[in-house]
Amino acid sequence: MTITASEIELKAQAAKRAARRMATASSEVKNAALNLLAEGLVAREDEILAANARDVEASQANGLSPAKLDRLTLTPERLAAIAKDVRNVAMLADPVGEMIEMRRLPNGMQVGKMRVPFGVIGAVYENRPNVTVDIASLCLKAGSACILRGGKEALQSNLAIGEVIASALADAGAPEGAVQIVESNDRAVVAELLQLKEYIDLVVPRGGEELIRFVEKNATMPVLIGGIGVCHTYVDREADLGKARDIVVNAKTRRYSICNALDTMIVHADVARAFLPEVQKALAAKDCELRCDDRSFEILEGRGGVTRASDDDYGKEWLALIASVKVVDSYDDAVDFIYRYSSGHSDAIVTENYTTAMRFLREVDTAVCYVNASTQFTDGAQFGMGAEIIDATQKFHARGPVGLREICTYKWIVFGDGHTRPA
Amino acid sequence: MTITASEIELKAQAAKRAARRMATASSEVKNAALNLLAEGLVAREDEILAANARDVEASQANGLSPAKLDRLTLTPERLAAIAKDVRNVAMLADPVGEMIEMRRLPNGMQVGKMRVPFGVIGAVYENRPNVTVDIASLCLKAGSACILRGGKEALQSNLAIGEVIASALADAGAPEGAVQIVESNDRAVVAELLQLKEYIDLVVPRGGEELIRFVEKNATMPVLIGGIGVCHTYVDREADLGKARDIVVNAKTRRYSICNALDTMIVHADVARAFLPEVQKALAAKDCELRCDDRSFEILEGRGGVTRASDDDYGKEWLALIASVKVVDSYDDAVDFIYRYSSGHSDAIVTENYTTAMRFLREVDTAVCYVNASTQFTDGAQFGMGAEIIDATQKFHARGPVGLREICTYKWIVFGDGHTRPA
Repeated sequence: MTITASEIELKAQAAKRAARRMATASSEVKNAALNLLAEGLVAREDEILAANARDVEASQANGLSPAKLDRLTLTPERLAAIAKDVRNVAMLADPVGEMIEMRRLPNGMQVGKMRVPFGVIGAVYENRPNVTVDIASLCLKAGSACILRGGKEALQSNLAIGEVIASALADAGAPEGAVQIVESNDRAVVAELLQLKEYIDLVVPRGGEELIRFVEKNATMPVLIGGIGVCHTYVDREADLGKARDIVVNAKTRRYSICNALDTMIVHADVARAFLPEVQKALAAKDCELRCDDRSFEILEGRGGVTRASDDDYGKEWLALIASVKVVDSYDDAVDFIYRYSSGHSDAIVTENYTTAMRFLREVDTAVCYVNASTQFTDGAQFGMGAEIIDATQKFHARGPVGLREICTYKWIVFGDGHTRPA
Repeated sequence: MTITASEIELKAQAAKRAARRMATASSEVKNAALNLLAEGLVAREDEILAANARDVEASQANGLSPAKLDRLTLTPERLAAIAKDVRNVAMLADPVGEMIEMRRLPNGMQVGKMRVPFGVIGAVYENRPNVTVDIASLCLKAGSACILRGGKEALQSNLAIGEVIASALADAGAPEGAVQIVESNDRAVVAELLQLKEYIDLVVPRGGEELIRFVEKNATMPVLIGGIGVCHTYVDREADLGKARDIVVNAKTRRYSICNALDTMIVHADVARAFLPEVQKALAAKDCELRCDDRSFEILEGRGGVTRASDDDYGKEWLALIASVKVVDSYDDAVDFIYRYSSGHSDAIVTENYTTAMRFLREVDTAVCYVNASTQFTDGAQFGMGAEIIDATQKFHARGPVGLREICTYKWIVFGDGHTRPA
């Protein structure tokens, strides 16, 4: 089915109308909708999986890569996990209406902020149907309507999920138009969506770099950018080398295909000879290759999977079982190196020195800055925020895991008692 | 003097280099620079006023309007007031490095946020030289560098002020390039600045609607939009009419040329007959005209300055001693009216009813939402934030008065102890 430009505009308008009612919906109504959605995903498993099977079959025929097919595929277990995430969102505190930073002014007025919904959030993503549920549930809880445009490979799955969402909204007494699923397979629809500033307050691209750049370049409304992680872990001269080894191995190999995975390990020269052989051994046991600068190559030469790095091997998001290695002479050199190559997603230091740790937290400009922990923790659920909509790498509005609070805005509120401003 | 595109790029690069040092500058250094700047503005009053006199003279010759000439003109008193504002900024708490929202996760990791500087903030504004000092001082305190492009009418004033700023930075040991004044009179320089996303993290336009729209449309980096206020005050059926009169008169007439001034007064039908004649009298005493809908016209017909409103008189920012009047039958009609016409800057209710007041705070989607107070309070200094960089009317990142906290971003920080993420 193809929809015309005016049809997507109608959906955006419907979302905007629903947004006004969503903004003042009670927590009870929103949580009821979420719990009904979770139930529906399990109860209507058959129709969702049948729709998903059609997507998978068509995508296989079109030669979609195995990795992408895997992301597209739903199973009863995966659906149950998605439903559980939705229930978790229902259990989170409602961010809407929370009063923060209240203060009493000398004239007796009480002034502060109230967290309020954004309005309409647009999302443009690729072929993972779970993203449809993730984003819809977060937007609902945060009192916003949403308009969702998933990948064409997942269209049947998304439409089936969309029906479950619509039933849940209706049964809970929530505004029916609050979640709009775009049906068109036409890529021009994305360009059209990005022009609908009048109705859509914020757009979130989730997917590969090409999609992100397209949205960033063409959106007329604000955009939340994220997902590209060139992540560093710096092993300081005062690191506990056992912790360092475990952290590096976890950051690289727990999952290598996600944005918070380690890309480059930086090692202080004073500990390179003690640390590198040990970490190489542990990484090699996980089939991880190392691209080494001259100094680390000299130490590791001849070991399996160890090769010389080229300049292009730094500042590179591997998304593979490969890490580049850099030996530095000082903490400052490590920070300079991160400043130059980090994408501002997740960067870590391993050190037992208190002052070095505190300096790193202040000096490294990245969305999530770690001391003595694996960068793989960068994730809304890990941070106790429930599902996340994106890991933002920009500085505007929200940075790092974007959860319920971060997809809200605020307004200032003033409690007066007949106050007028003196001349 | 005209500078070429590459020169503005050089200034932006210099700002970016300075930004990295500014980000970790101590509060002592930043406050020293601010206090030296305040001293310099007074000590070097003669050269600043001489430069300003050249600007004023040239602008008079070019036929600049009296209102704009007034905004351009500096006096010893105004310079002293500007210097005082700078000292006030020095006295505010340093927002940089503040840890907020810290929590301990079940695995023992401590996770939270740290407020950190934005980087390089660009500002494009018109002919008020005090804006140069306002923005520079807020950016310095917030640990950001800035690149400032004021109106061509104020160029000599801005260059003189820029020299005082540069001396203050140097004498305090702060990075000299942290405040860059663009010297070109060529409007093309603004378009060029808006392309320098690589060096400038955020741009703030301050001025008329044309300038704001130009920046919004052409900027490749995030923009903080604000300054256009179509502001409403709703007098509820349960209002204290004495408070209502004082609030309306203050909101309209204290200063009528600023964005937080009242544009439309909405009055509940039940109190229209009691309230309107009294408020009209008080407004007429301040030379304020009223543009009335049919129902208010019927009550006020024949009084001085009272005429019938046209449709265009609603949703209009007057910036003049004129207000439009609308009578409504219910609270809901008032909120619908504000939803339709407000620019989302500042809107108020006057009521003694607790539940109505609390509903208004939840339901009206505006940057600053008032109960029983004049909208003229919308101002960073009034809210105890020191000087403000803008009153934002967007929902992204910051809304309403934008002070020190709001021109910062944050990063997540994680204190671990060898933590690795389970599979």
